[in-house]
Amino acid sequence: MARTIRVELGWRSYDVLIGPGTIDTLGAKAAALPRCSSAVVIADQTVADLYAARALASLKAAGVAASRVTFPPGECSKTLQTLSTILDSLLTQRPAIDRDSVIVALGGGVTGDLAGFAAAVALRGLRWLQCPTTLLADVDSSVGGKTGVDHAAGKNLIGAFHQPAGVIADVATLASLPVDELRNGLAECVKHGVIRDESLLAFIEENADALLSCRGEEMTELVARNVAIKGAVVSADETEKGQRAHLNYGHTVGHAIETLLGYQTIAHGQGVSLGMAAAGAMAVARGLLSEQDHGRILALLTRLGLPTKWPNLDAQKIWQIMQHDKKARGGKVRMILARGLGSVDIFPDISEEEALRGITALG
Amino acid sequence: MARTIRVELGWRSYDVLIGPGTIDTLGAKAAALPRCSSAVVIADQTVADLYAARALASLKAAGVAASRVTFPPGECSKTLQTLSTILDSLLTQRPAIDRDSVIVALGGGVTGDLAGFAAAVALRGLRWLQCPTTLLADVDSSVGGKTGVDHAAGKNLIGAFHQPAGVIADVATLASLPVDELRNGLAECVKHGVIRDESLLAFIEENADALLSCRGEEMTELVARNVAIKGAVVSADETEKGQRAHLNYGHTVGHAIETLLGYQTIAHGQGVSLGMAAAGAMAVARGLLSEQDHGRILALLTRLGLPTKWPNLDAQKIWQIMQHDKKARGGKVRMILARGLGSVDIFPDISEEEALRGITALG
Repeated sequence: MARTIRVELGWRSYDVLIGPGTIDTLGAKAAALPRCSSAVVIADQTVADLYAARALASLKAAGVAASRVTFPPGECSKTLQTLSTILDSLLTQRPAIDRDSVIVALGGGVTGDLAGFAAAVALRGLRWLQCPTTLLADVDSSVGGKTGVDHAAGKNLIGAFHQPAGVIADVATLASLPVDELRNGLAECVKHGVIRDESLLAFIEENADALLSCRGEEMTELVARNVAIKGAVVSADETEKGQRAHLNYGHTVGHAIETLLGYQTIAHGQGVSLGMAAAGAMAVARGLLSEQDHGRILALLTRLGLPTKWPNLDAQKIWQIMQHDKKARGGKVRMILARGLGSVDIFPDISEEEALRGITALG
Repeated sequence: MARTIRVELGWRSYDVLIGPGTIDTLGAKAAALPRCSSAVVIADQTVADLYAARALASLKAAGVAASRVTFPPGECSKTLQTLSTILDSLLTQRPAIDRDSVIVALGGGVTGDLAGFAAAVALRGLRWLQCPTTLLADVDSSVGGKTGVDHAAGKNLIGAFHQPAGVIADVATLASLPVDELRNGLAECVKHGVIRDESLLAFIEENADALLSCRGEEMTELVARNVAIKGAVVSADETEKGQRAHLNYGHTVGHAIETLLGYQTIAHGQGVSLGMAAAGAMAVARGLLSEQDHGRILALLTRLGLPTKWPNLDAQKIWQIMQHDKKARGGKVRMILARGLGSVDIFPDISEEEALRGITALG
C-alpha cells in the first residue's frame, strides 16, 4: 500500500515514497544513485537509537558502505555550531567521504534541515536522501529543498536550497511519536487544506481519530495528499519568488510568536495554529473569509488538539519581530490571507494596526 | 579602456567589467539590479581601509543604502568561525537586511570565498557583486561561483556554488599589492595558458615586466584574456563534473603542498607553481609533453618569480593528502596533465609511484 508522489523540478525531480516499512528500501534507493560511493546517515541520538541500525543494515545489504553521525536531539541543535560539529565528523571520518558520497537525513525537521544543509555545503554539495520520521517532516520539510539552521535573530535565517535525490517516508515510524509531535504535522496539513484543497480539510475532519492514532492506511493517504499539494506549489515556484510564499500561511505570525516565546516553550505546530487563527481573523476583518469558514478552521484545529488562543501575548513585540522576519520587503510586512477555503493570496500591505488586531484575537 | 567579458550561465549569466577605476561604477551596477533594497560591503580590514569608503560612496551616490562588515585579513580568516561572525553582523544590523539586499565582496580570494559563501547562506541566498582587488581574484575566483571556507582536513572543503550578479575588476587596485601577491595571480594565468591557450603564454612572456609593474593597459588585457578562458570552461561545465576539472591543473599537488606546509608558510601561487612543475614532470614521463615545452613553462614561472623547486618536501605525506583531497574518487587519485601546450586531459589513474616521482622532481 505504499504510494509514490513525484516532485517535479526538472533535472532535480525526485520521488517521495510513502508507506509503512519503506525505510527498508533505503539501501536499494541509495545504491541506485549513479556512482554512489558511500553513505553517511545523520540522525539525532533519539532517532539513531530507534532506526539507525535498520537504515545502516539496509544500506549495507545493498552494498553501500555506510557510517553514521549523531547529534543531540531538539531544535536547540539547529545551529551553525552543530553544523560545524557534523561537518567535522563528515570531513575527518575514515574512509573519507568524496563527491560521490550520499548523505541520509534520518529524523524529523531539525535533522532534515541540518543534515540537508550539511549536504549542501560539504565538498560544495553532496547528494542526499531524506528519511523523515515525523509527520511534520513527511508533509512539510521533506518537499521543497529548504535546508538551514536558526540564528539568534530568528529561525532559518541561514541555509540553502538543496533538493534531495529522494525521500522515503516510512509512516510506521510515526507510531513512536508523542501525540504533540503528531499535532505539529497536522497543523501543516490543515494549512495545506486552507491554501489549496477544501476536500483535504474534509478528509482530516472525517478521519481525525484514525490520524491521531496513526493508522497506517489513513496516514499514508494523508501524507500522499499533502506531499502532492506541497510538491505542486514548489514545482511551480522553487525559490519562493511567487506562489511558494502561500506555504507561509500562518507562519508570519506563527514564527514571530515562536521567536518571542522561545522554541522551547511553544511547538512549531502550535505556533502555526495560532498564526492561522490570527490570519483567519484578519481575513474575516477584510471580508475575504466568512465567519463560518473561519469557525470551521478553528474547530478543526481544536479537534486536533491545536491551540487557537494564547492569552497574554505581547502583540507589539510580535509585530516588531514580524517586521524583521525575512519575508519583510523594504520594511513593509507581507502576509498570506485566505480567500475562502482552499485559496489564498499574498497581501504585501499589512499595517501595524491590522496585524495587532489579528494577534489580539488570540487573547 | 575598460573591457567587459560575459560569463555565460543561462539565467545566471553575468558581466565582468575590467579596467582601471571601475570600482566607481559599483553603485550604478548595484542600483541596476532588480529590487535592490540595500547593500552590505564585506571586506577584510586592510582592504576596507583602502577602498571601502570609495565603494560605499559609489553605492550611496547611486541611491543604495549601504553598510559595511569587516574581518581580519588572511587565509586564516577563511573558516566557519569567521563566517559565523560575519553572519552575526549581517543578521543583526539595523536596518535589517532582507531578501532584496545585495552583498558586495570587496577584496581578494579569501574575501570573495567568504563573502560569497555568506551571500549563499544568509536568508538562504542573497545576490552578490564581486569587486576583486587582487590579480588572483580577478583571474580566478571572480569567475565560477565557487565560494566557501577551509577546514582542518583541507582547503575549501565547505562551501557552495553561488554565482555573483556581476564582477567589477578595478585593475588599478592591483598597484597597491605586494609583488608576491601579484605572483599568486600570475601563476593562475600561466595555468590558463597551459590548459587552453599557448598564445597567452607568449603574451605573458613578452609583457612580463609590464605585468610585474602593474601597467594598466597590459593588466586589463591579461585579466580580460584570463576571464574569457575561465568563463568558457565554467560555462561549459558549471559544477565541475567534466572539463571544469581542467582548472585544477597544478592544484592537486599544489593544494597538498599547501596543506602540508601550512597556508602561512607557502602562498597559493607558489603551491600552484610547484604543482605545475610536478604535473609537468609527470606529463614528460608519460610522453605527453616535450622536455622543451616543459622547460618553457618552468622558465616562465621562474621569470615571474615563482618557485619550481622546493627542497626537502615529504613526498609520501603529500601523496597521503592528495588521496584525501576532495577530487579523489573511490580512493583513486585523479590528476590533470598537459598534452603539449594549450591542452590538457583528465587522468584518473595516477599511481603512488608516479605521483612520488613527480613530487620528487621538485627537490
